[in-house]
Amino acid sequence: METVRVALGPRAYPVHIGAGAIDTEALYRPHLRAGRIAIVTNPVVGPLYLERVKAALSRAGVPTVTEVLVEDGERAKSWQALERVFDALLAARVGRDGLLVALGGGVVGDLAGFAAAVYQRGIPFLQVPTTLLAQVDSSVGGKTAVNHPRGKNMIGAFHQPAAVIADVGTLATLPERELRAGIAEVIKHGFALDAALVAWLESNMARLLARDAAALTHVVRRSCELKAQVVAADEREAGARAVLNFGHTFGHAIETGAGYGAWLHGEAVAAGMVMAAELSVRAGFLRAADAERVRRLVRLAGLPAAAPALSPERYLELMAGDKKAAGGRARYVVLQEVGRAALRDDIDERAVREAIVASIDGAPSASAQ
Amino acid sequence: METVRVALGPRAYPVHIGAGAIDTEALYRPHLRAGRIAIVTNPVVGPLYLERVKAALSRAGVPTVTEVLVEDGERAKSWQALERVFDALLAARVGRDGLLVALGGGVVGDLAGFAAAVYQRGIPFLQVPTTLLAQVDSSVGGKTAVNHPRGKNMIGAFHQPAAVIADVGTLATLPERELRAGIAEVIKHGFALDAALVAWLESNMARLLARDAAALTHVVRRSCELKAQVVAADEREAGARAVLNFGHTFGHAIETGAGYGAWLHGEAVAAGMVMAAELSVRAGFLRAADAERVRRLVRLAGLPAAAPALSPERYLELMAGDKKAAGGRARYVVLQEVGRAALRDDIDERAVREAIVASIDGAPSASAQ
Repeated sequence: METVRVALGPRAYPVHIGAGAIDTEALYRPHLRAGRIAIVTNPVVGPLYLERVKAALSRAGVPTVTEVLVEDGERAKSWQALERVFDALLAARVGRDGLLVALGGGVVGDLAGFAAAVYQRGIPFLQVPTTLLAQVDSSVGGKTAVNHPRGKNMIGAFHQPAAVIADVGTLATLPERELRAGIAEVIKHGFALDAALVAWLESNMARLLARDAAALTHVVRRSCELKAQVVAADEREAGARAVLNFGHTFGHAIETGAGYGAWLHGEAVAAGMVMAAELSVRAGFLRAADAERVRRLVRLAGLPAAAPALSPERYLELMAGDKKAAGGRARYVVLQEVGRAALRDDIDERAVREAIVASIDGAPSASAQ
Repeated sequence: METVRVALGPRAYPVHIGAGAIDTEALYRPHLRAGRIAIVTNPVVGPLYLERVKAALSRAGVPTVTEVLVEDGERAKSWQALERVFDALLAARVGRDGLLVALGGGVVGDLAGFAAAVYQRGIPFLQVPTTLLAQVDSSVGGKTAVNHPRGKNMIGAFHQPAAVIADVGTLATLPERELRAGIAEVIKHGFALDAALVAWLESNMARLLARDAAALTHVVRRSCELKAQVVAADEREAGARAVLNFGHTFGHAIETGAGYGAWLHGEAVAAGMVMAAELSVRAGFLRAADAERVRRLVRLAGLPAAAPALSPERYLELMAGDKKAAGGRARYVVLQEVGRAALRDDIDERAVREAIVASIDGAPSASAQ
């Protein structure tokens, strides 16, 4: 078992990574409380791992838990699903001394984490991520939210988990498409923060896609280390943390434009990174050859490198509502080199339009010219 | 203008108290931001004070604001009302750099404060309380919430305002019943924390009910000072802050049992304090003569001193779901003497039943025996 610490003073917490982590009662024990424990999961993850988590909790001295099932997929990040979670917690009399456990992927973690943030003005929660995306990204950092028809993650909170228990063994059952979507966030960590990770991915993508346990552990640990550093420096996304949104402004526009659920988040981020890299080249920050490395690595992971063919106007409209707009001024995370991203608010809209046109399905790219 | 500071480190903020405060643009200016300002108010308060707040903001350099109207009364603290606030904020493109202003009583403050806590994971807000209850209690301390059919304030957050602007001049238009309900919380501050305030109220209730400006300013300032001290010592209600809930466990049961809106919050707290004082006597903490001071002062303010005639079982059931229950063990805030409340979890249920029976309409009281 490897442990990465997220250094946040009174809100510091461990991220435990390893095969068999969910069966290790010692990882749960420090976080048990006087009140009831509720496990939020969904009909896909529940049948695979719920009994194992319950067994570990039982060994840790918790004989019964409350189970809360939410829908599978992004539609569980809805206002209505949140309301149903509260109804279930109140019906089970989970109190302020209770504990939530989020067992599932990023959707379950975001929903259950937000529920924990505001249920009776906040109770602690454990992240038990069972997708690669959640293990390398969303379970660490305390960002929780639900969606709104006008945009993703519009209603949420910063609420750090008490601990993250990331069992790479659970990735064995992950559908291929979701594995690839998780790799998108690993690629993001590399291009935004760590050139060595990019090089590692360029050499080891086949091992990762074959779910080699050592390869998975490597990318989960390295991603958590990188994310933990950024989060510790900027818990509430006032500045430095924004670099983790590389590919996300475009990615959110793709997800919203295509309708929630048509694209997986990681798939949209993958195409979004290609767009952001294109923009970085056209705005004069990045060499075309480096943007081509983004595109190549995205393709090597079997992820979409081309954005849906919506008009530039539609993309701009979708991004205008994005929370990364400040005082009416659009901000973009661009690459300055491989492993170094930056948030800029001085990007010409023409460059954005060009990057969009160059990135949509069938378009020739600046970097390929 | 008097100013009380709430000492909360990076979340410290001023409470400005005085006649004409809402017209004083200098009080708003330090809190303006790059993005849009939205004012949340209701159809009762809006026509009285919205134009004055807008005029002050205009003098401070904010030409336009977004207005969000919510229903009058406790039903605005609903899940549906919250959703409508989000819809309005998103439609107006209020961004992460925006600011909310809560203009109204405790309901508007709780609702708008919670909306600010979770809108785009949290934006700042100003409390502009226009009821005595909000000025002496709910606008200070950062507790925000909406109700759930199973209980009050079940979904919420601790989110401190950037400032509180309490204009005692706005109390001139407050309905008599709401003025008295606000006095209930002043009485609570006295019995829980400050014997001198109790003595002052025993001598000056007539001036207060006549809305004497100096008397109002005195109780608002003293209440804010007392509350600020408690909140600074225990921001998230881990312990010491619980004394501010004197009368509230019973009070919430009254509100829920009678159906939201039948009793004003302050009225329920008034009867709840009488019940809690009865309990304090029967559990052996308080002299009967001091419980009688609670009852007398509640009556002097024209507030209900008798609880609705529900069965003890129903009260216990209503209180079991209260968030002040810990590990299945009911906790009560009792008085040990006038000006000194304490949270106890060792109270015999029989004493609770006796206190309930003794406090309902028509019953003889222990203190009157």
